[in-house]
Amino acid sequence: MLDEAVRPAALRPGDTVMLVSPSGPTRPERVARGVELLTGWGLHVRVGAHAYARSGFFAGEDALRVADLNAALADPRVRGVICTRGGYGAQRVVDAIDMAAVRRDPKVVVGFSDITAVQLALWRGARLATIHGPGAAWVDERTPEQSAQSLRAALMGTEPVVVKRDPAEETARVSVPGTARGPLLGGNLSLLTSSVGTPDMPDLAGAILLVEEVDEPPYKVDRMLTHLRRAGVLRGLAGVAVGQFTNCADGWPVTVADVLADRLGDLGVPVLGGLPIGHGHGQVTVPVGTPATLDVAAGVLTVEPAVR
Amino acid sequence: MLDEAVRPAALRPGDTVMLVSPSGPTRPERVARGVELLTGWGLHVRVGAHAYARSGFFAGEDALRVADLNAALADPRVRGVICTRGGYGAQRVVDAIDMAAVRRDPKVVVGFSDITAVQLALWRGARLATIHGPGAAWVDERTPEQSAQSLRAALMGTEPVVVKRDPAEETARVSVPGTARGPLLGGNLSLLTSSVGTPDMPDLAGAILLVEEVDEPPYKVDRMLTHLRRAGVLRGLAGVAVGQFTNCADGWPVTVADVLADRLGDLGVPVLGGLPIGHGHGQVTVPVGTPATLDVAAGVLTVEPAVR
Repeated sequence: MLDEAVRPAALRPGDTVMLVSPSGPTRPERVARGVELLTGWGLHVRVGAHAYARSGFFAGEDALRVADLNAALADPRVRGVICTRGGYGAQRVVDAIDMAAVRRDPKVVVGFSDITAVQLALWRGARLATIHGPGAAWVDERTPEQSAQSLRAALMGTEPVVVKRDPAEETARVSVPGTARGPLLGGNLSLLTSSVGTPDMPDLAGAILLVEEVDEPPYKVDRMLTHLRRAGVLRGLAGVAVGQFTNCADGWPVTVADVLADRLGDLGVPVLGGLPIGHGHGQVTVPVGTPATLDVAAGVLTVEPAVR
Repeated sequence: MLDEAVRPAALRPGDTVMLVSPSGPTRPERVARGVELLTGWGLHVRVGAHAYARSGFFAGEDALRVADLNAALADPRVRGVICTRGGYGAQRVVDAIDMAAVRRDPKVVVGFSDITAVQLALWRGARLATIHGPGAAWVDERTPEQSAQSLRAALMGTEPVVVKRDPAEETARVSVPGTARGPLLGGNLSLLTSSVGTPDMPDLAGAILLVEEVDEPPYKVDRMLTHLRRAGVLRGLAGVAVGQFTNCADGWPVTVADVLADRLGDLGVPVLGGLPIGHGHGQVTVPVGTPATLDVAAGVLTVEPAVR
């Protein structure tokens, strides 16, 4: 039996949010559009002390990245923690997250991709419901107006989030009929796989697993799903919500949809592909950690809000 | 305390070896040179029934690949099982390996890369010492005469295998002084990482870990090593033998040697980089599963033979 999620308060106009970079580096000009959007929704945007730091492929050394994250999580004036982007590096620091601060004052945490590692850690350490959505390094070409509205609704609204299968998505034909209900958990497949055998791997029994990926060829997606299967972490799953698998083609005559159908199709649970959640065009924001319903016939994933 | 390895009999002229393809597909012309070498050493080469099968990126469907492997392992006339190549696919079938046959009649098993999965399974299921070396899909440009002699010595000789650090290898500067002794376990880093949380992940306490990789950018090597660290599987390690990390550069100003130095340098155990073991030029063959000594000052890894 899964614990109930802790839901932070919805953001309201006048609230302060903090931009942090737990993974890869960014620059002020790259988050300018994100800041503009957040400001336009009435939020005050502060930037973490080291959000623009650089050290190799990280946004500054481990100690700086987690210091920013912990400063944002501990500051009572900060109501939302917005990751600028993913990249790589969160798993190096998540064991140093100040979980006492998170439990004392749960707040909205937004991001995806490498930030899945932060979200899995917050789920483990504080049962915090978080928000799987674009970071502040916003690009209108990938995430146009409807993506902005989706993020705003997940941050500031308290209605369930409804995501419909997009028949144009490459994974749309990945489908096992049925309906499922359980907390939506997961995110980026690489990060989930890199959590196997660590305390951050969530107990997926009774859960709906969300998976999305970018820039991984089909054989590596096969390897990751095979790893999850062999590690036993998919046992007792309620269903699978398949998001975008972006730039996941290579030269072989096997598509990522073939691989997903093969590795997820025989689990004996409903699977809904084609959800516009991930690194692709028109990314929709979804809560993670809260109860969800997967209705494959209707092609709809409905998720209770992460905020209250 | 690790169990002692089971050592198969060394191959002798007149023995029969079987070529199998548990992972990716190959063609007769691609193994021609390997067959020529093996035949030249006095071995009779048989080809598995489905060694040239194809199904997507696999050498035939799962059932065919493991059927070939099990046929070779069970046939008393076959004294050596030579994998044609790696690729991807072994983890999909290793749980169906006939371990009773392996325990009943242990034989030489050769391969590397994706075949690490087979070797980890054989270690788990039968404590079989195996041989980490080139497959039958032999290319003289990558594995010239000295590589052939190294494979022959590991298959047909019973002397310890001595591998010297090559200062020209990219990982040669990855070094933590000291000496270590323990069974040599490991192989391809991706495959090792994909075994975390499965029964095939070996207990590395007291062991010397062998790692090599190909075609993975530094940040992914960092992620894999971070995964192993966070999963606790490196606790109690005796030392690390760092092989070739081939084609592991990307556009970032961080090299794979930087990453290896960072993630392995603080484990508190000797680390010897620059070993010509892996996907690079001049690959040396080494036993896995048998006692080894790592002498960083001398730049030498010495491994007891896999055969008796």
